[in-house]
Amino acid sequence: MKFSYKLGELIDLLVPKKVVGHTSFSISSIESLTKTKRGGISFLGNPKYKKDVEISQASVILLPAGLDLTPKEDQCFLLFDNPSFALGKLCRDIERKCCPRPSGGIHPKAIINATASIGQNVSIGPHVVIETNATIADNVVIMAGCYIGHGVKIGDNSVLHPSVRVMNFCEIGSRVTLYSGAVIGSDGFGYETVDGVHEKIPQIGNVIIEDDVSIGANTTIDRARFGHTKVGKGTKIDNLVQLGHNVIIGNGCLIVAQTGIAGSTTIGDYVVIGGQVGIAGHLNIPNGVMIAGKSSVPNYKPKMGKILRGNPATSINDANLFYVLRSRIPNLFDRVLKLEESLRELLSK
Amino acid sequence: MKFSYKLGELIDLLVPKKVVGHTSFSISSIESLTKTKRGGISFLGNPKYKKDVEISQASVILLPAGLDLTPKEDQCFLLFDNPSFALGKLCRDIERKCCPRPSGGIHPKAIINATASIGQNVSIGPHVVIETNATIADNVVIMAGCYIGHGVKIGDNSVLHPSVRVMNFCEIGSRVTLYSGAVIGSDGFGYETVDGVHEKIPQIGNVIIEDDVSIGANTTIDRARFGHTKVGKGTKIDNLVQLGHNVIIGNGCLIVAQTGIAGSTTIGDYVVIGGQVGIAGHLNIPNGVMIAGKSSVPNYKPKMGKILRGNPATSINDANLFYVLRSRIPNLFDRVLKLEESLRELLSK
Amino acid sequence: MKFSYKLGELIDLLVPKKVVGHTSFSISSIESLTKTKRGGISFLGNPKYKKDVEISQASVILLPAGLDLTPKEDQCFLLFDNPSFALGKLCRDIERKCCPRPSGGIHPKAIINATASIGQNVSIGPHVVIETNATIADNVVIMAGCYIGHGVKIGDNSVLHPSVRVMNFCEIGSRVTLYSGAVIGSDGFGYETVDGVHEKIPQIGNVIIEDDVSIGANTTIDRARFGHTKVGKGTKIDNLVQLGHNVIIGNGCLIVAQTGIAGSTTIGDYVVIGGQVGIAGHLNIPNGVMIAGKSSVPNYKPKMGKILRGNPATSINDANLFYVLRSRIPNLFDRVLKLEESLRELLSK
Repeated sequence: MKFSYKLGELIDLLVPKKVVGHTSFSISSIESLTKTKRGGISFLGNPKYKKDVEISQASVILLPAGLDLTPKEDQCFLLFDNPSFALGKLCRDIERKCCPRPSGGIHPKAIINATASIGQNVSIGPHVVIETNATIADNVVIMAGCYIGHGVKIGDNSVLHPSVRVMNFCEIGSRVTLYSGAVIGSDGFGYETVDGVHEKIPQIGNVIIEDDVSIGANTTIDRARFGHTKVGKGTKIDNLVQLGHNVIIGNGCLIVAQTGIAGSTTIGDYVVIGGQVGIAGHLNIPNGVMIAGKSSVPNYKPKMGKILRGNPATSINDANLFYVLRSRIPNLFDRVLKLEESLRELLSK
Repeated sequence: MKFSYKLGELIDLLVPKKVVGHTSFSISSIESLTKTKRGGISFLGNPKYKKDVEISQASVILLPAGLDLTPKEDQCFLLFDNPSFALGKLCRDIERKCCPRPSGGIHPKAIINATASIGQNVSIGPHVVIETNATIADNVVIMAGCYIGHGVKIGDNSVLHPSVRVMNFCEIGSRVTLYSGAVIGSDGFGYETVDGVHEKIPQIGNVIIEDDVSIGANTTIDRARFGHTKVGKGTKIDNLVQLGHNVIIGNGCLIVAQTGIAGSTTIGDYVVIGGQVGIAGHLNIPNGVMIAGKSSVPNYKPKMGKILRGNPATSINDANLFYVLRSRIPNLFDRVLKLEESLRELLSK
Repeated sequence: MKFSYKLGELIDLLVPKKVVGHTSFSISSIESLTKTKRGGISFLGNPKYKKDVEISQASVILLPAGLDLTPKEDQCFLLFDNPSFALGKLCRDIERKCCPRPSGGIHPKAIINATASIGQNVSIGPHVVIETNATIADNVVIMAGCYIGHGVKIGDNSVLHPSVRVMNFCEIGSRVTLYSGAVIGSDGFGYETVDGVHEKIPQIGNVIIEDDVSIGANTTIDRARFGHTKVGKGTKIDNLVQLGHNVIIGNGCLIVAQTGIAGSTTIGDYVVIGGQVGIAGHLNIPNGVMIAGKSSVPNYKPKMGKILRGNPATSINDANLFYVLRSRIPNLFDRVLKLEESLRELLSK
């Protein structure tokens, strides 16, 4: 994204506690301290990288107020209680300018069934299809090529990136973001095998995505056999994640890319799941559990504690201990062999 | 999906062996025994959950004929030889009513090449593209935004959900379901490295999907280098699965989400593969093998038997034994240390 | 793909060093030596499969010049210095004929913003959307249903398969192939948790895909928090891969399907990563490293060497040794038990 801020504009926007150094710049890039060049802005988020400030070529650096550092010539320091927060404010400003919300309005090449209900100030892009009885609340943005099935509800201020598909009767809350290619409400993987034929079990439930949820690109969330597959308020899900039918995710969870959760498993609130984790079906994972990336969780018992790791997962302490000992196992074999030899020798005397 | 059945309608539809209890209801939800509320219907699939019947608030419960249970006041039991089967019948009826097959007809916003052949009673949604010489058989449903490449064949009664892409010359059988975002026939990942440049090996084969197959959302199946990548009759594949070029899958297999099978591997009939499994290329997995979720299969030898687990996979017995012993390895190190000490002491006497 | 070559046409195209045997054929299929039937062509790539030539039913076989084999009646051998190279030439010819590059031109059902710049001889399919200030260089092919965001740049001779989405301000080099459903430049997964609310960190960087890169179907590559997520020249990425924000991939890498690389990790040049590998964030993987499929890489230290395997990964030698010893661990427990018994007996004497 291309942008340019004069130092005065920056100061007006970010309101630093103090301005130190040269003050007649424009900045037009943001990078980490060591990568930024002249004309760029950077920040010190973690005081342990303080030395990077000294070598940084950044024209403007956002710093914690307490720090006693002197800008180089042609450099300006802006001091804040929380430089990361100030940077976030700047980034949001840039984002707002470079990628403004599409203007309200329905593109003439969108196809919207006459029975659908469309709120105020909604933006619907080209090639969007909205089927019968769908309800789109106010201020929703639906970008190009999305598919909104029959009876779907989308809450206010939600944003659907290009080519999202929300299948029949699913319900999306307010301020939800669905990234490109996500499929919400495809049929659950349920078959009954009768005489060697896998007969499909109808999947007549839906998916409920609660308020303030984010769902990553090309992620798939299957509809319930009956009842609901549900993602709780404020949960953030990354790309290429798979949630099976009737999975229930609590509030405020973080689920990293390529994780899969099998059918009917319930995840509590504020659970953090690393990338590429696999969780079996019909489990209950309590509130606040953290699962390291690449772990598999075929079952969960309270004695496993709150931080899990491994394949299959155990408490993280047990897992880490095993990984350390694993490297000593070849030596253990040697030691046992030596013991056997010593003992044999002893007995043969 | 919203529905409502009067008890009389339910009885006409499901034809129970016996009706016990109160009979003047409508039901408008389905859930498990413990979740259902008044106005809901539930069922006892497995007699071991018999106690859930006693606490269930369901207005109507489908039960096995032999069971001797008494409905609460305001509750009705319907008795069947196979309550699950009866429930399935009800669900299919609901599905049929809530999500009727799109009416036959080609949407005016579909783009169909004049050389394509379209059968009787085909439904083609908006923004579908069908390229030259494609053949679409009778009763096929192609939903919004699908792409059908040159020379593709789609057999009768198949259903393509929104945004499915079937690339040039692939062949889809009869009664196949392709879920949203599936990509059938993208190029195989084949490169020859010449002087540090990865030169693409042309992928001129295709993908053949046989009858009664189901392919999950955002799953990718690559076309063959030459010849065919093939999925056999009646096989069901879940979401986000990857099949490499020239993979051959037999009949009646079940492949759970996020599994990947590398190029040129052949999978027999009725193989069951759990989620997130990885299978290396150029292997032969015999009929009837089962592979536990999250396993990796870098090779297969008959002595591994029919049920595999682990990373890398072994027979499930060996894997389970190892997982039990794994937790005792820290203790084993202690025991060996003690043995060494004892022996040293003994020898020093 | 359907094709037919008379032997004369084959000879004209491939220019063999020598032609042996019967010469009045047409060939219309390609398969491996043991699968080809009459009317088919095959090749001997690796001399160790020489015996397959004797049993092959192929009408035409491409062979290394040095080999002294006699064709069967009704069979023709074409001799080359490099039969694989000759086969590749044939396959490219078939591909060119069966799947010709779409004719230049913009489909009337594409929607292209007036501020976008479109080069010479560009082919843009139906339902493509190109947003403001996008730049499409000469000879680019953009197939049906692609989405090209604001300010995106696409270099000459690149090909975008159906339904690719390139989000705002991303830059695609020359001769790049993006396969169907790939999402380039979705927001990175970055949240800051404030009082139990996961607040989105704006992701204002972009993705840069350098020249000659290939990105597989339904793969997702997230835009940078700021700066760039980058894929270096000549790197080939398979299907369903996930690259987090600010990941930097070097030149000439090969990354197999379903691998995930977490944010801010840097991968060197000519790194080869097997399928389903997981690499943690903020790591540096040096040039030339190879990582076996299904490995997890939570950290990297030079002493791990250039070939890694395992979960978590170690040097491949350590990993392979562990996998061998793993099968002997049950026996090790027995041996330690016996040692304890022997020692106890010894001490009790």
